Amino acid sequence: MAITLVNGIVCDYISAQDRGLHYGDGVFETLAYVEGHFQFLQQHLARMQDGAERLGIPYPDESLFLGDIHKLLQKADAPRGVFKLILTRGQGQRGYRPAKKSIATRICQYSDWPEHIDNWKSTGIDTRICDTRASVNTSLAGIKHLNRLENVLASSELGANYQEGFLLDNSDNVIEGTMSNIFTVIDKTLVTPELTHCGIAGVIRGQVLKIAEENRINTEVRCVSKDEIVEAREIFICNSLLGVCAVNTIDGVKVQSNIITNIIDAALNKRMSLNA
Amino acid sequence: MAITLVNGIVCDYISAQDRGLHYGDGVFETLAYVEGHFQFLQQHLARMQDGAERLGIPYPDESLFLGDIHKLLQKADAPRGVFKLILTRGQGQRGYRPAKKSIATRICQYSDWPEHIDNWKSTGIDTRICDTRASVNTSLAGIKHLNRLENVLASSELGANYQEGFLLDNSDNVIEGTMSNIFTVIDKTLVTPELTHCGIAGVIRGQVLKIAEENRINTEVRCVSKDEIVEAREIFICNSLLGVCAVNTIDGVKVQSNIITNIIDAALNKRMSLNA
Repeated sequence: MAITLVNGIVCDYISAQDRGLHYGDGVFETLAYVEGHFQFLQQHLARMQDGAERLGIPYPDESLFLGDIHKLLQKADAPRGVFKLILTRGQGQRGYRPAKKSIATRICQYSDWPEHIDNWKSTGIDTRICDTRASVNTSLAGIKHLNRLENVLASSELGANYQEGFLLDNSDNVIEGTMSNIFTVIDKTLVTPELTHCGIAGVIRGQVLKIAEENRINTEVRCVSKDEIVEAREIFICNSLLGVCAVNTIDGVKVQSNIITNIIDAALNKRMSLNA
Repeated sequence: MAITLVNGIVCDYISAQDRGLHYGDGVFETLAYVEGHFQFLQQHLARMQDGAERLGIPYPDESLFLGDIHKLLQKADAPRGVFKLILTRGQGQRGYRPAKKSIATRICQYSDWPEHIDNWKSTGIDTRICDTRASVNTSLAGIKHLNRLENVLASSELGANYQEGFLLDNSDNVIEGTMSNIFTVIDKTLVTPELTHCGIAGVIRGQVLKIAEENRINTEVRCVSKDEIVEAREIFICNSLLGVCAVNTIDGVKVQSNIITNIIDAALNKRMSLNA
């Protein structure tokens, strides 16, 4: 089941002039609603505001988004679900150049919880290195914007045997998964790719880094080469729906250890219930 | 005035589940309709088909697009105008991964001719080098897809004093304008950036290269550095609405010559009337 609000009104359509369609001119967030609570709601809204500001899209009063998700929650009436928030620069005339004053379009969609990811979380997942590369652009790096063709193409490479794939930049550094951020453990240090020139800086990625610091786990945010990843003995991915999820294999090679993954997972679950 | 057809039916809305909105998962073309004829219609349709195939989006029977533009033409009833064709991967469920079988969404929009570009063409334009960079991604390079945030951000830098701006890649090579391809003349050779790692391979760019060959003008398609462009004595831009348009200044520096520009412009005009 899916229910959509456009600018606060139940509606399955948006204007064919919307710049979200024409240029991917907008930002989005994916929120997990679990056991009666939105996970890291404030962090998601803060990231959306930051992305909108970097793109020069007017960010609406936060109460409007809060009103939307509570309205949807009542309609959905389910113990858990996925809430996607989209903010576009709104309707535009022909041409790339934004109007001096834009009226942003606010979209809020509820979807049923994707049950298959519960299995992924309990068993771990098989992964590969994708042929599709991550787009390099310092102006856009880190933002969860609507230009996501690289994620679409990379995910279409996965087929039935892989649950996630990783994108490299054009220097063969690993950037992220098609729908997740990646962490690995190298010489007892938790390592995740820096996202200064491509990729999305995930909300859960930020939480994992905080948890590692609190637990005095050595951490590095740096360039991570493809070779380091395929030789890694511990890898996990994270996103807003999965939380943390162990990687079992990468390109068919077994990943042996889950020690740090389990520590982070337990701490994240605790943080989520406190956050709730 | 704007009129829109969605899948052949007059309609100002698209589904809020369309992957064009969620991921920019689609391609588009901008067609000039001038003096009773569509300019380079077959070349535009061929490029859209090529882009759709690279992205794995099912390309509909060409007669559907032809039907759309002729239906719009009757409604618009104007001697010239702009026709934008969009093809998205259609409606989708949650998640990046495309369905095995997609039903593409076909959008065709008529807009009034932008009169201001007639002035640009007769007087030439002032340009700058933009701070926003072109996204580097070999999987997407050359395709006129819907992930166009870089063009939006770059065009928002132009202000009132510049009609066009140029995007560099992350190695300080010039790639393209925000809405055009760029040509320059260096040592009597017509030079345009290669678009193997970023940029859009424009239909008019292709025509200019053919014209240069027919007129035995030396041509190079290669990396073009920022320094080469700011020191250039002849620069022009091209796109489907402008055809060819001379650049008068770049970052405030005068560009002196129009010799090759005028030859190409005259030949392009002739080609367009033959094409009509």
